[in-house]
Amino acid sequence: MSTDITRRLDAARTAAAEAGIDALLVTPGADLRYLTGFAAMPLERLTCLVLPVEGEPVLVLPRLELAMALEAGVDGHGIVLHGWDETEDPFAAAAVPLADARRVAVDDHMWAERVFAFRSAVPDAEQVLAGPVLRGLRLRKTAAEVDALRDAGAAIDRVHRRMGEWLRPGRTEREVGRDIAEAILAEGHESVDFVIVGSGPNGASPHAEVSDRVIEAGDPVVVDIGGTMPSGYCSDSTRTYVAGGSAPAEFVAFYEVLQRAQEAQCDYARPGVTAASVDAVGRGIIDAAGFGKEFLHRTGHGIGLETHEEPYIVSGNDLVLESGMAFSLEPGIYLEGRYGARIEDIAVTTEDGLERLNLTPRDLVVID
Amino acid sequence: MSTDITRRLDAARTAAAEAGIDALLVTPGADLRYLTGFAAMPLERLTCLVLPVEGEPVLVLPRLELAMALEAGVDGHGIVLHGWDETEDPFAAAAVPLADARRVAVDDHMWAERVFAFRSAVPDAEQVLAGPVLRGLRLRKTAAEVDALRDAGAAIDRVHRRMGEWLRPGRTEREVGRDIAEAILAEGHESVDFVIVGSGPNGASPHAEVSDRVIEAGDPVVVDIGGTMPSGYCSDSTRTYVAGGSAPAEFVAFYEVLQRAQEAQCDYARPGVTAASVDAVGRGIIDAAGFGKEFLHRTGHGIGLETHEEPYIVSGNDLVLESGMAFSLEPGIYLEGRYGARIEDIAVTTEDGLERLNLTPRDLVVID
Repeated sequence: MSTDITRRLDAARTAAAEAGIDALLVTPGADLRYLTGFAAMPLERLTCLVLPVEGEPVLVLPRLELAMALEAGVDGHGIVLHGWDETEDPFAAAAVPLADARRVAVDDHMWAERVFAFRSAVPDAEQVLAGPVLRGLRLRKTAAEVDALRDAGAAIDRVHRRMGEWLRPGRTEREVGRDIAEAILAEGHESVDFVIVGSGPNGASPHAEVSDRVIEAGDPVVVDIGGTMPSGYCSDSTRTYVAGGSAPAEFVAFYEVLQRAQEAQCDYARPGVTAASVDAVGRGIIDAAGFGKEFLHRTGHGIGLETHEEPYIVSGNDLVLESGMAFSLEPGIYLEGRYGARIEDIAVTTEDGLERLNLTPRDLVVID
Repeated sequence: MSTDITRRLDAARTAAAEAGIDALLVTPGADLRYLTGFAAMPLERLTCLVLPVEGEPVLVLPRLELAMALEAGVDGHGIVLHGWDETEDPFAAAAVPLADARRVAVDDHMWAERVFAFRSAVPDAEQVLAGPVLRGLRLRKTAAEVDALRDAGAAIDRVHRRMGEWLRPGRTEREVGRDIAEAILAEGHESVDFVIVGSGPNGASPHAEVSDRVIEAGDPVVVDIGGTMPSGYCSDSTRTYVAGGSAPAEFVAFYEVLQRAQEAQCDYARPGVTAASVDAVGRGIIDAAGFGKEFLHRTGHGIGLETHEEPYIVSGNDLVLESGMAFSLEPGIYLEGRYGARIEDIAVTTEDGLERLNLTPRDLVVID
C-alpha cells in the first residue's frame, strides 16, 4: 500500500506539473483517501493535503486527529503532518508552503466555504480545479484496486442472495430496506451507502429509496443497494424481484427486453470502444422493443472509492475504454404509474474484454 | 411542515435581501433540506434550489428525481420544479432566473466544481457565501425541530441502554462497533453517522472510530455514537463504560472530575450566557484538577439537520445563547497511551434554562 500511495503522489505531482499547477489542495473525500490512504472525516474542522509539485507534501489536520493519521500510516509516505489547535487558523497554516505558487488547484468536491477561505489565504495564486489532474489517475484501477472492488461485489452479492429472508408481500419497503441495511453491514461493509426498494409503481422512479408502501403479491420490486468496504471501495448492484405470486405476463416480456439489453452491453464493452457506444448498444435494443423513452437514464457510472465517479457510460461521452476501468452497466425501463425494472452489474475492463464483479442470477427472481 | 417550509423560504429571502444578495443557490445538504423539506441525494448530477429575493424559487434537478421531489411535496411550497435530461446543461438552466443578479450566494458546502461552474454560468454576478444568511435561521430551532431532536435523543439512548449486549472483554472494537451500527438502525435511525468504540489507550484519541484491538477486562471504553432519523435530525451521545472487571482506581478519580465538569456545564448553560463561557466553566474544573492540557477539544457543537453545525461551544465564540439552540456538551479528558473519557449529552436551551435530550446514566457504567 505504501508503494501504491507513493506512486500515486508522484503521479499526481507529474500530472499537476504538466497542467502548469504548482500545488494541489485536497480536503476529505475520495481524492484524499486515494492520495494518502487516510479516510479523514468530512467534518467542519479543516483537514487538507497540500501537495506542491516541488517540496514536501503536508497534511494539515486538527490535532485531535493526528493519532488517526499516524495509525493510517500517512507519515510513512513522506507526508509531513501539521496538527492544528482549536483556536489556530488552519488556512493560514496550509498556505505557508504556497507563498510562491502562481496556480493552485482545489479538489472538485471541496466545500465552497473552503474554496473562498483559500482564495483569501493565497490571494496571489490563480485558483483552478484539481479534477482534470486527478481524474485520469483514479480512472485506471490497479490490480489491487480491482481486487478490492471484487471483494465489494462479493459482499453485496451475499446480501442479494439473502433477499428471500426479507422481501415478502405484506411488509413495507421501509421494513425490507432496514433489514437489507443491517445485512449490508453484517456481510462485511463498513457503511451503508443507499438502499432502494422500489415496489410496484415506485419501481418506476429510478432513485426513490424506500417508502411506507406495503408490498403486494406479484409486485415487481427493484432492489438497488450498495455500501463501502473497510478498504474504502464501494459496491452497487441491482436486481429486480417479484414478491410472491407471479408477475404480470406483460412485465415478464418487458423484463426480457431489459435482460437482453444488459447482456448485450456486457458482451460488447471492452478496451477500445467508447463509453457512449456501450450506452448505445443497450439503448438500441430497448428502442427496438418500443421502450426507448422509458429508458430514462444513462447506462452507468464509474465506481471505486466513490460509488459514482468517472467513467460515465452515457451518450456523448467519447472516452475510449482502457483495461482497468470499473463501471456499472445498469439499463432500466420505467413505466410511470405501473412498475420499473433495472439490472445492474459492476464490471471491470480486462486486457481484452470485461469481468463482471456481480454474479447473482439476472433472471427475474420470484420470491415465494 | 408546509407552513414551516414556506416560513423558512420567506425568512431566507428577507435575510438575503438585507445582505444585498439577489439570489441563493443551494445544492443537496442540510441547507437544501431545511429550505425545501427534500433530502436530495448528494450525487454528481446537479440538484440546486435557485431562490431569488424577487420571483419564484426554482428547484433544478435531474428528471430522474422529479417523482421524489413531488413525493416530498416540494411543489406544495410554491417551488417550481425544473427537471433536466441526461444531455442538458443544468447550470445554464439554473442561471435563467439570474440574468439580472448582481450578487449571488452559494451554499457553504457547495462542491468546488459547482462553484466554478456557476461562476461561468453567471459571469456578471459577484459570488459570495450563503452561510451568513442561512446560519442565523438554522441556529434557532422551532418547537417541531426540538421534538425531532428529542426523538433522535431517545433513539440513541435506547442503543446505549443495550450496550451490555455487545461490549465484552475478548471482543474487538470493530465487532462491537458493527453490532452498535446495526442497533442504531434497528432503534429507528435511517442511517448510521459514526460509531466510535475507543478502548483502553484508543480512548485517548478523541476521533478514532474502531480498530481490531481486543477489549480487555477493566478497560475504560469511550462509546460515541450517532445517526440520522427519518426526519433528517441527528443524534449524538457519548458514554464511557468499563468492560468487565473493575476500572483502575485512578481512572475512577479522573472520571469523577469529568463528570463534575459536564454536570456544571449543564447547570450553567442557558439563554444569556456566551458559548465561550459554557466552555470555560467545564475547562475551569478540569484545569483545577490538573488535567487542563488533556481536555484537548472544545466543549461541543450545535446539532440539527447536521451532526455538527452552529453554535460551536468553544473558546472565543462570543455568541450569546438564546432559547431554542441545540448543542452537545461533551468535555473529555485524554491521557495519551493510557485511556480517555468523555461524557456527551445533546441539550437545548429553553426559555430560562436547558433541557437535556440524552438521559441515560452518566456514571461510569461497569458492564459485567
